Amino acid sequence: MAAFVKGHGTENDFVLLPDPDGALSLTAEQVQAVCDRRAGIGGDGVLRVVRTAADTEARALPGSGGTTWFMDYRNADGSVAEMCGNGIRVFARFLVDEGLAEAGEIAVLTRDGVKAVRLGAAGDVTVEMGPAGLPGTDRKVRLDGAGPALDGWLPAVEVDMGNPHAVVFVDDLADVGELRTAPVVEPAFPDGVNVELVVRRGARHVAMRVHERGVGETRSCGTGACAAMVAAARQDGVTGGSTYVVDVPGGRLGVTERADGQVELTGPAVLVARGVTELV
Amino acid sequence: MAAFVKGHGTENDFVLLPDPDGALSLTAEQVQAVCDRRAGIGGDGVLRVVRTAADTEARALPGSGGTTWFMDYRNADGSVAEMCGNGIRVFARFLVDEGLAEAGEIAVLTRDGVKAVRLGAAGDVTVEMGPAGLPGTDRKVRLDGAGPALDGWLPAVEVDMGNPHAVVFVDDLADVGELRTAPVVEPAFPDGVNVELVVRRGARHVAMRVHERGVGETRSCGTGACAAMVAAARQDGVTGGSTYVVDVPGGRLGVTERADGQVELTGPAVLVARGVTELV
Repeated sequence: MAAFVKGHGTENDFVLLPDPDGALSLTAEQVQAVCDRRAGIGGDGVLRVVRTAADTEARALPGSGGTTWFMDYRNADGSVAEMCGNGIRVFARFLVDEGLAEAGEIAVLTRDGVKAVRLGAAGDVTVEMGPAGLPGTDRKVRLDGAGPALDGWLPAVEVDMGNPHAVVFVDDLADVGELRTAPVVEPAFPDGVNVELVVRRGARHVAMRVHERGVGETRSCGTGACAAMVAAARQDGVTGGSTYVVDVPGGRLGVTERADGQVELTGPAVLVARGVTELV
Repeated sequence: MAAFVKGHGTENDFVLLPDPDGALSLTAEQVQAVCDRRAGIGGDGVLRVVRTAADTEARALPGSGGTTWFMDYRNADGSVAEMCGNGIRVFARFLVDEGLAEAGEIAVLTRDGVKAVRLGAAGDVTVEMGPAGLPGTDRKVRLDGAGPALDGWLPAVEVDMGNPHAVVFVDDLADVGELRTAPVVEPAFPDGVNVELVVRRGARHVAMRVHERGVGETRSCGTGACAAMVAAARQDGVTGGSTYVVDVPGGRLGVTERADGQVELTGPAVLVARGVTELV
């Protein structure tokens, strides 16, 4: 029996397991059971909320000394994950709502390093996602199942947000079709790639759909929104210090590329239920 | 802010809203929000748990006088529903676990009348689903997207369990394919029909997949399991007083057709989490 909280950021949803003293030894099977959308609570992943000082793995991570809280993120399949831009915003909202951290700026430890998160007592949450890399490799993407307007190979912009992205600009997201199968990318990425289909909505405003590697189409992808913004900004001739609105199927995000290259993701983080579960 | 419990019967899952005194006036929008699998808690439907005496609609239902509890069942889309064979088992398990009813036999009021439910302090739950009707109309079913073994029109047995079913016997459930589109049934049912694809697993043992009208393929369907059992029993020359095991994608059910024609559905009912939600 364990306490849990359910929350989401632009419909990327998580089961938080508050474990301040590191008392839980969470197995892959437990994570799968919790994330099962019918036999469990349901979520894209689990966020275990543990004090850095109470977790052996956390204490060994770079930069852990300056942090109080470690986001132990697990994918729904039970595997360990490094970082999640939507998840960390929900994580921070939980800390503040529970009085475990003060509103303002919080340094959250993740397996991808220490992340700065900013939030008020209510409302949107901003997280520093790191700088974008633009390797400049010519890539092309083919969407099987797309409408005739997107037949054949489409040019893609490669963006590295810690994980790899291929951003494809299209005229109409409806042309993308059902996106049931993974887009084909050439040259291929050895470990797969997230593909963003991006349409212009106005000045510094885009909308996107995303196919996440190993998952399929999702309602939102934090690093994907950042990749889409940076690709759009470069296409606009903007190289830093700008903010774009990025609409995703699950809601609206704001992405800022600061003059120093740091990319910030801003958006809602909502806690909808809390209680106890027998699955952990 | 309202209390909730999440539970499932063979992975047909529900959000229970305990409302003994009838204090909740539940809107369709609230039900949709609660059942949303990403922005909400997630479920196939909501079961509001209210005392018959505390609910105007319940008091007016036939047979309400002999009941203490009314199962106010809502579909995930917010519409009102009459009855659910998996839902009522979860409903009864909740009543007993919470000490709101004694283990043994409980008369639960539904919009489809009073249902007798039997359960112990733990374990499976049995519900009387009413007698099956076999109109004997010749129906045929076509499965678009099925493998070559199921090409063309297939003979179907029509079974009425309060709602209409067309049961099709196949040699291998894998031949059914992805079942993405509704099977075509001729002559058509004016309000649609649930279609069960049923394979023999042994003596008095079948397995099935089901396409529920208006929903798509589901992990389990209580009336569908009953329809599959009755169709199989008739094919076996059995007309009453027998029990079959019916495997569904979400687990295992037992279906008994009593000598008096009453069909009983038995299976697991599991409560996995409880707490409070801000969605209601």
